[in-house]
Amino acid sequence: MTARAPAAAPFADRLANRIEALRSPVCVGIDPVLSRLPECIRAEAAARWGETERGAGAALERFGRLVVDAVADQVAAVKLQSAFFEAYGAPGVEAFWAVVRHARSRGLLVIGDAKRGDIGSTAEAYGDAFFGPPDPGPAWADPDRWVDALTVNPYLGSDSLLPLVRRAAARDAGLFVLVKTSNPSAVEIQDQPLLSGETVAQQVAKLVGHLGRRLVGQRGLSGLGAVVGATYPEDLTALREWLPRSFFLVPGYGAQGGTAADVVGAFLPGGQGVLVSASRSVIYAYEDPGVTEAEARDRIAAAAQQMNTELRAALARAGKGFGT
Amino acid sequence: MTARAPAAAPFADRLANRIEALRSPVCVGIDPVLSRLPECIRAEAAARWGETERGAGAALERFGRLVVDAVADQVAAVKLQSAFFEAYGAPGVEAFWAVVRHARSRGLLVIGDAKRGDIGSTAEAYGDAFFGPPDPGPAWADPDRWVDALTVNPYLGSDSLLPLVRRAAARDAGLFVLVKTSNPSAVEIQDQPLLSGETVAQQVAKLVGHLGRRLVGQRGLSGLGAVVGATYPEDLTALREWLPRSFFLVPGYGAQGGTAADVVGAFLPGGQGVLVSASRSVIYAYEDPGVTEAEARDRIAAAAQQMNTELRAALARAGKGFGT
Repeated sequence: MTARAPAAAPFADRLANRIEALRSPVCVGIDPVLSRLPECIRAEAAARWGETERGAGAALERFGRLVVDAVADQVAAVKLQSAFFEAYGAPGVEAFWAVVRHARSRGLLVIGDAKRGDIGSTAEAYGDAFFGPPDPGPAWADPDRWVDALTVNPYLGSDSLLPLVRRAAARDAGLFVLVKTSNPSAVEIQDQPLLSGETVAQQVAKLVGHLGRRLVGQRGLSGLGAVVGATYPEDLTALREWLPRSFFLVPGYGAQGGTAADVVGAFLPGGQGVLVSASRSVIYAYEDPGVTEAEARDRIAAAAQQMNTELRAALARAGKGFGT
Repeated sequence: MTARAPAAAPFADRLANRIEALRSPVCVGIDPVLSRLPECIRAEAAARWGETERGAGAALERFGRLVVDAVADQVAAVKLQSAFFEAYGAPGVEAFWAVVRHARSRGLLVIGDAKRGDIGSTAEAYGDAFFGPPDPGPAWADPDRWVDALTVNPYLGSDSLLPLVRRAAARDAGLFVLVKTSNPSAVEIQDQPLLSGETVAQQVAKLVGHLGRRLVGQRGLSGLGAVVGATYPEDLTALREWLPRSFFLVPGYGAQGGTAADVVGAFLPGGQGVLVSASRSVIYAYEDPGVTEAEARDRIAAAAQQMNTELRAALARAGKGFGT
């Protein structure tokens, strides 16, 4: 049995502190599609491993590390989209965890964007998978491997959330529950009006508010967060009323059309309480796949910097800036 | 590029034919928890690999193959719960696919119970992960590896379902959408009454019925199925009215409390249209972890047989039997 490293602080505090220290609410989404990676990375992996899943996994890992190195000094968090790694089987999953470890070693907070949701012993198994097995864990339970927070789907209700809330509390980790997603058809289920006068998304927000008490940190914010899309600015503002102290994870910035002005309504004073996430508009900022790794890194760093600048300006205009 | 094996027939037909041929609507859930496996399997894996994820993966694979061999001649399908494999990282995922391949080689239909749900390019990546990449695929795209059907979560609406419906159609695969799950807190979101007079679950059922036209086979059944828990018999009957030709995947039989009498309402005439799934009550039927592998296999086979017998009797009583 390995002893786990003592927990540093609740996720909500670690996140708030890092946002403040870097003056950045930016989260960079790592959604690697093999065909869009720099050709030099793909060529090197193919030369070593051939056209195999192992080769794909090696390319994903190298690219993920490159993105981490490009943004580690200027953004609060990275979000790894599990699907893009799962697409390459076990080697893809190995790459996922290698990038997670690297990001943590660079001081980034890491969100596993896996949108899991299941009950009972299955929810516990997802807890094992993303936050590590309960103490005392097996020999291989590497304390640097697990994610700091996980995205979860609420359709199964609190049976699916509570086991992960408990595990997150024990691990100083966080959760982001899908409340209102960024896609057009989010309205089909999430915006349905209930007899009670609320929408389905508001019903979920109530559940998040209720369970979120268990993950409140020293600074008063809760690490049981909500996913609310940048593409629905009115919902961002309205749901902030329902969830005054939950962290919001806001996808849909950039490629999906969300702007800095769209997301300010979700913020608390001092630029707090929100992670704004962009993936494609940052990680593929180099456009030409013929770039060198150094060029790709520079372009990605510049795109993240640009996003920081846009958000800081919009927050300052709204009187919610980081101060001087 | 490898040519894919030509598709055999739509998933709905393959499933209906196998149910009919075996006179069995049983689906055995493979949810392996390391601590509950036969000690001989754990000891052998530990002797070879030590207390490592690789060792855990080896034990999961061996147990999964044992379950497959025990039930292959008498049940329609197996359902692998992804979480229990993901809990052991990349080696666990490798075990997942090894068990899938083995089950397919034994003629079983294989359901990946992963409850995925995401949009756009992420939904496509989940399609790659579970149904294989689009043709022409990469060299490693093994036609025997992918699942025959996947469970999916509808909270994000049709944006999350359509990419997988299209992929499933191209691959003669199926999907089971969570409509009404078997757990107590399913009511918190799924049973909420809408202004329209429907519940959230009924709203999802409408979506399933609408999109399901794309996966209808020669026999008139649709491979866009619905997950409805055995623990809610009234919903099983009511949702069958809403979804007259969708396959139902019915979890919650056995350990969760559902009985044969509870599930007959979901069946179509001739014992068709339903897969009843049990996990713990079948795969851990040996109770004593000190069993030999042969004993474990016999107990698991007997438990599956018992479930078949119970279901056939209940169906016959309801006038929905397989005939003679």
